Amino acid sequence: MAEHVQIREVGPRDGLQLVKTMLTAEQKLEWCRRAGEAGIEEVEVTSFVPPSVMPQFADAGEVARGAVGLGGFTAAALVPNLKGAQRAIEAGLRKVNYVLSASEAHNQANVRRSTQESLENFKDIIDFRNDLAKNSSVRVQIAGGIATSFGCTISGKVDESRVLEIADKYLEMGADELIIADTVGYANPAQIRRLMSAVLKVAGSVPVACHFHDTFGLGLANATAALEAGVRAFDSAIGGLGGCPFAPGASGNINTEDTVYLVESLGFSTGIDIAALLELRRVIEAWLPGERFTGGVARAGLPKTFQPVPAHDQRRPRRAAT
Amino acid sequence: MAEHVQIREVGPRDGLQLVKTMLTAEQKLEWCRRAGEAGIEEVEVTSFVPPSVMPQFADAGEVARGAVGLGGFTAAALVPNLKGAQRAIEAGLRKVNYVLSASEAHNQANVRRSTQESLENFKDIIDFRNDLAKNSSVRVQIAGGIATSFGCTISGKVDESRVLEIADKYLEMGADELIIADTVGYANPAQIRRLMSAVLKVAGSVPVACHFHDTFGLGLANATAALEAGVRAFDSAIGGLGGCPFAPGASGNINTEDTVYLVESLGFSTGIDIAALLELRRVIEAWLPGERFTGGVARAGLPKTFQPVPAHDQRRPRRAAT
Repeated sequence: MAEHVQIREVGPRDGLQLVKTMLTAEQKLEWCRRAGEAGIEEVEVTSFVPPSVMPQFADAGEVARGAVGLGGFTAAALVPNLKGAQRAIEAGLRKVNYVLSASEAHNQANVRRSTQESLENFKDIIDFRNDLAKNSSVRVQIAGGIATSFGCTISGKVDESRVLEIADKYLEMGADELIIADTVGYANPAQIRRLMSAVLKVAGSVPVACHFHDTFGLGLANATAALEAGVRAFDSAIGGLGGCPFAPGASGNINTEDTVYLVESLGFSTGIDIAALLELRRVIEAWLPGERFTGGVARAGLPKTFQPVPAHDQRRPRRAAT
Repeated sequence: MAEHVQIREVGPRDGLQLVKTMLTAEQKLEWCRRAGEAGIEEVEVTSFVPPSVMPQFADAGEVARGAVGLGGFTAAALVPNLKGAQRAIEAGLRKVNYVLSASEAHNQANVRRSTQESLENFKDIIDFRNDLAKNSSVRVQIAGGIATSFGCTISGKVDESRVLEIADKYLEMGADELIIADTVGYANPAQIRRLMSAVLKVAGSVPVACHFHDTFGLGLANATAALEAGVRAFDSAIGGLGGCPFAPGASGNINTEDTVYLVESLGFSTGIDIAALLELRRVIEAWLPGERFTGGVARAGLPKTFQPVPAHDQRRPRRAAT
């Protein structure tokens, strides 16, 4: 049986950070629903940031509630602080992705505080989550994300020891998952293999995901290196949308369709129906005129030689065969 | 000292196969000249195919003579048969890249004969080259290229044993180099690692180059896998131009700028000045309006963390510092 790799759709969050068109909550929910129907197990549905900073997520509560209502996939959200986490959980989310930056300068630009303060904020979120678990039936998974783990457009090089130190602190505080992010696309495959092997070692049984951007065309080379290092979960966005507003020159996430194609070509199962992703992509392209969509599979169709890998987990609701 | 990797510019040949605009011989020679000045050691300057098939190469003789006159880089040309090789050598070229397809169907579509017949034609070229060496001071290097080595848009899967068999025959007949081509972009990193390790083994001391297309976004993931397998020479095209007219849906070559960036990021030296490539790219973009140019480095600039790797070979003429 093929080993499973989880591809998580972050398009409704990261994919919308730089686009010029505001999508409605209904459109975002269609994105989530169809991603889930295509077999995506987890969708980062929104970001609980102040609407003054990112007005495109002013509907975060509505989208989160709607996504939870859809079912069929894990709905997660990005949060930069305790307040965001509280709003996310209140809206019904049971997975919260916290993010801080390994680069001090990027953390200041992104959330206006030091990385150390951001780590202390994470502890508050974990305490809040633990109190909730003690006093109610609400169980929430908290992921610890490390942005700019492979370099920063503001400050340049980021020491691997710093990333490992932050990973260690996250684990000590009780993170349920680590997300190692190449926010600006600076990583190369050798760097990925080195750092991800070290992160997987400190993480032990705690799941580790990678979040890659394809700024320099190395996105899928980096994903390949991470797979080889042992990473089994990746963030990606349909059409390769995405980008960090506080990382000048940054461009899109790795493309979901192409990532699924790569991962299955390497013999792993994803449980994802690429044809359904391509249909969803066409819908999103119509919503977002003028945006740069990337992707080889969308342009060229799947290779004649491509064979989808059967997924072992058949319990999850899947799109009916058409 | 860093290990050297040769990046060869095939834009003036492969890069022009599908473009709508006809470049003049002067423009093609400017492309060659500036590529050489940027540090590119070998340029595939044209294709000696019948002008009735590819009118954009009707000036092959003029371009080849001009490129030889420029000096500073090895000028090579693609040839599909003995007549092409004779024309190339007559024009002054001392490196000839012969190509046949591992896929029977693609070979028929491309050169209208069987792969076996193409192999026999290669023998004629080698005999011609050997006679020339015996009777004159002319020494010509003949490379044996294997198109569709990783799959074919017409016939699908291509057996690895078939590619190895053709490689073996090329070597037996006296090929000076093997070029293993993923003409349609079907390859994945696992396949590359497997096949290229086997090819390098049979090739022994004969150099082996890879020629990749980026149809599905895996071009640089595949280049990384080939580097890891031990390949030290790659074809690429500035701006990621290129494509095979007999491979429906095929798209551009791996991008020269991004390939140099990848290879140097992994610690190899290329001797190539990326800034000079980007200037050349801007010139070519102005010549070819409406074409699809790819490339992360051109869009985002080089990462702050990028450090060019010093080349060991300082004997070659290089662009003066500006």
